[in-house]
Amino acid sequence: MILDIISKKANKYELTREELETIFMGYLNDEVKDYQMSAFLMAICINDMSDSEVFALTDIFIKSGDVLDLSFIDGVKVDKHSTGGVGDKTTLIVAPLVASCGVPVIKMSGRGLGYTGGTIDKLESIPGFIVNLSEEEITKQAKDIGIVITSQTKDLAPLDKKVYALRDVTATTNSIPLIASSIMSKKIAGGADKIVIDIKVGSGALLKTQEEAERLSSLLIKIGTYYQKEVRTVISNMDVPLGYNVGNKLEVLEAIEVLKGNEQGKLLDLSLDLATKMVSLGKGITEKEALKEVKGNLESGKALNKFLEFVKYQHGDVNNLSIDAKVYNIKANKSGVLKDINALAIAKLSESLGAGRKSKEDKIDYNAGVVIRKNIGDEIKEGDVLASLYTNIENPTFNLDKAFEIS
Amino acid sequence: MILDIISKKANKYELTREELETIFMGYLNDEVKDYQMSAFLMAICINDMSDSEVFALTDIFIKSGDVLDLSFIDGVKVDKHSTGGVGDKTTLIVAPLVASCGVPVIKMSGRGLGYTGGTIDKLESIPGFIVNLSEEEITKQAKDIGIVITSQTKDLAPLDKKVYALRDVTATTNSIPLIASSIMSKKIAGGADKIVIDIKVGSGALLKTQEEAERLSSLLIKIGTYYQKEVRTVISNMDVPLGYNVGNKLEVLEAIEVLKGNEQGKLLDLSLDLATKMVSLGKGITEKEALKEVKGNLESGKALNKFLEFVKYQHGDVNNLSIDAKVYNIKANKSGVLKDINALAIAKLSESLGAGRKSKEDKIDYNAGVVIRKNIGDEIKEGDVLASLYTNIENPTFNLDKAFEIS
Repeated sequence: MILDIISKKANKYELTREELETIFMGYLNDEVKDYQMSAFLMAICINDMSDSEVFALTDIFIKSGDVLDLSFIDGVKVDKHSTGGVGDKTTLIVAPLVASCGVPVIKMSGRGLGYTGGTIDKLESIPGFIVNLSEEEITKQAKDIGIVITSQTKDLAPLDKKVYALRDVTATTNSIPLIASSIMSKKIAGGADKIVIDIKVGSGALLKTQEEAERLSSLLIKIGTYYQKEVRTVISNMDVPLGYNVGNKLEVLEAIEVLKGNEQGKLLDLSLDLATKMVSLGKGITEKEALKEVKGNLESGKALNKFLEFVKYQHGDVNNLSIDAKVYNIKANKSGVLKDINALAIAKLSESLGAGRKSKEDKIDYNAGVVIRKNIGDEIKEGDVLASLYTNIENPTFNLDKAFEIS
Repeated sequence: MILDIISKKANKYELTREELETIFMGYLNDEVKDYQMSAFLMAICINDMSDSEVFALTDIFIKSGDVLDLSFIDGVKVDKHSTGGVGDKTTLIVAPLVASCGVPVIKMSGRGLGYTGGTIDKLESIPGFIVNLSEEEITKQAKDIGIVITSQTKDLAPLDKKVYALRDVTATTNSIPLIASSIMSKKIAGGADKIVIDIKVGSGALLKTQEEAERLSSLLIKIGTYYQKEVRTVISNMDVPLGYNVGNKLEVLEAIEVLKGNEQGKLLDLSLDLATKMVSLGKGITEKEALKEVKGNLESGKALNKFLEFVKYQHGDVNNLSIDAKVYNIKANKSGVLKDINALAIAKLSESLGAGRKSKEDKIDYNAGVVIRKNIGDEIKEGDVLASLYTNIENPTFNLDKAFEIS
């Protein structure tokens, strides 16, 4: 039976909801083995899925676990998701910005694995910050200040989690329908009414081409329509890290600088774009109106104040964010123009400094990371500092291969 | 690295020999996990392999284990292989037929798993027959009587064995390049100079279409050319069981009947065809000349005598082959013309009677099996016996679904 279902997909036939349920729920129950599921996932990667297969799979993922009920909060619940980027600390900026506009943000976030950091890890780098909130605490905090970021309280889409872990080790991550059903099942189980999704594209992202990103965007919107959850997407570049800082506490520091109005550029622009879409959806106003409000709250300091209020509420101490690590300055070995700062290379570098986990059990060093000191297009002189590396590893060696390209 | 190789195949790129070696030898050494190999095998099933990939894979399989040296026997060593059919006892007929023509037959055979029986199981159903011969015994027997059938003495292509077991449970059996490299690696490691391969096609075979069978044939011949081993193929039908008897001892009994000249039909014709090709290759004569010799030795009783000599040499007693099981006659429940005898249904039926193994550890009942009593096209009257079932299972129930179609 299981082998017949795998063969059917391998031979490019469309599967019924019952067939998808048999194999995926069988996997959750350990009746279908890892090696069978990985063969099936590969068949999906190569032979794709129809829209109705994707809708069915999303539904199976959602029903595999709990579904949050956020109806205790008044108004439209807007969530935000990113497909994962290097230096992506937009949640830390966007969440308080949106909350400052009166749109509640109740976000369940995850920890990072591999190169991409998790919002929960970043917040935990703030001394005292508590990420494990009870349902009562979430409810009270949402009512009091309109912004909560917590680790998952319930078992949301556990089947997606199990499948995702297998995809990660079997080269079956790169499938638009699998990515779409994974994202949407988590967001819908998380109780969102409307969802803004930041699709990363480029050498440092899972999706390498604009075409793939557009297909994912269209599929996410379709799944949203199927569930009557409005979805808006942003497609953003991930050839180069987002902002200057990569590493948990370093990213918190950069987010604060953005909220203070001290940093211009792509990170700010993307944050404004995402916040604008969330406010527009949450308040039912045009994006033009929303942008005005968002910009106003950034400039007035309301967004920063919301951030500080939020951190304090979850017992964090922002006055104690100095980086406790040794600094190593990386200098240019020749003069020329800075042509490229490779996101993937910077991510690997940051991980090697202690900022990332290789396996779930690894501890991370919140202080470790990379601060990029130059921009693409800058004239570089030999000896100029390109980046500062922070680490607590004794006698570290740095792999700078491909990180900075000067020509 | 492993994930990169899997991705490369998933994205339809040709792999180098080094890449194939990395992933396949990694699998043999347990560095590559089952779930990674199954994803990779699925990518091969869907995206196919180039000829040079197939040559490389065959080579990797061969070099994963021992290679037999049969040079102690004079002349050309010709082996025979079948891709697996229901009721296929041709080896029992062809081996003595070919040996009786003076072409030595030294064959390493396997046990059956699932629906298809193994030659070793069939021979073991002869009381006293010894299948585990030492190298000294093989050498002596080959010199004395020119025919040996034994279980594997050495570890031939162990990697192929490991990969095959995984393919069996992951719906990745149906790949022409994987089938071809599996067959050829085993035959070449077994020391054959020239090889005759019986490719089964039809509802009861792995390959369902003539087109697939022809592609496999052409690929087997190409691999043979690459190794300077002449390969000839026969494509034979497997919609219907081969001959009348299915089950170990029952098949031995039918083989003896064919060697006695008491049975005409497809089983005899295929046996003559395979023996002719082997004798033609072994003696370097035309198939016309070989056929004449083969037919002569069948008619004169030389082939039967060679069979009896061979069984006696390996301590078997052919005078003691009565079937020790209860017989249940299956009668037609309506009148009409017999339209179909479904090979797969008969195989499953025979397995359910005790003739097959579901897992490697299962014991089989040598006496169990099916004897088909009618031919396709026969006029059937309600109550006619269609088949006799032999089993030692108490109170058996028979699943005759699709086995016989009368219209």
